[in-house]
Amino acid sequence: MDPDPLSTTLAALSDPTRRAILARLAAGKATVTELAAPFAMSMPAVSRHLKVLERAGLIARGREAQWRPCRITAEPLKDVADWLAHYQRFWTESLDRLDEYLREVQKKEKRHGHGKNRAKRRA
Amino acid sequence: MDPDPLSTTLAALSDPTRRAILARLAAGKATVTELAAPFAMSMPAVSRHLKVLERAGLIARGREAQWRPCRITAEPLKDVADWLAHYQRFWTESLDRLDEYLREVQKKEKRHGHGKNRAKRRA
Repeated sequence: MDPDPLSTTLAALSDPTRRAILARLAAGKATVTELAAPFAMSMPAVSRHLKVLERAGLIARGREAQWRPCRITAEPLKDVADWLAHYQRFWTESLDRLDEYLREVQKKEKRHGHGKNRAKRRA
Repeated sequence: MDPDPLSTTLAALSDPTRRAILARLAAGKATVTELAAPFAMSMPAVSRHLKVLERAGLIARGREAQWRPCRITAEPLKDVADWLAHYQRFWTESLDRLDEYLREVQKKEKRHGHGKNRAKRRA
């Protein structure tokens, strides 16, 4: 059974080298040789990573036989973003709780009269 | 070599059952039995999925020996969102290009006098 497209995208992204390749392509088209340069990696190893990215629709390659520049095709990333959006409230809420906690700490600090250091800092 | 946290998160998310478990937990805490119910899956299989999610920090489990409810801990999802944000311009640009294309088509339609249907729709 073939994995669903979102699973294929997430699996393709779950590798630091493939994410680094995408980051490079975000700056513009590049050939396999150019992409391989920053990595201590054989060309076949880079080609395998490119194939995974290509299968996930995250990159596309030119048709010119010798010079087949890769470019980013970020549409699948939008699907990841759309999926993530359902969970955004969880980390927003966490930050809200942190904010509330910090305000509580500040209030306590005031109540217990630890204002001296603050006054010093202000001077 | 242990994978980096972002790779661990993305790998954990690259499975439709694990994403379905997260979706269920987004609605509230649940026990393993409750989580297993909608899936035609053995308890050990569900437990294995939960372990992957737990290792990625995407869920946490209660300490009560018998009743160990799982809950979502979405902080790693924020790291995915932060990573994704670098690429947002790619799909926004694609939509801009689509918008431009549609406007171009509309302009052509007007120029060639295909305004009849539009007039009908407006009536």
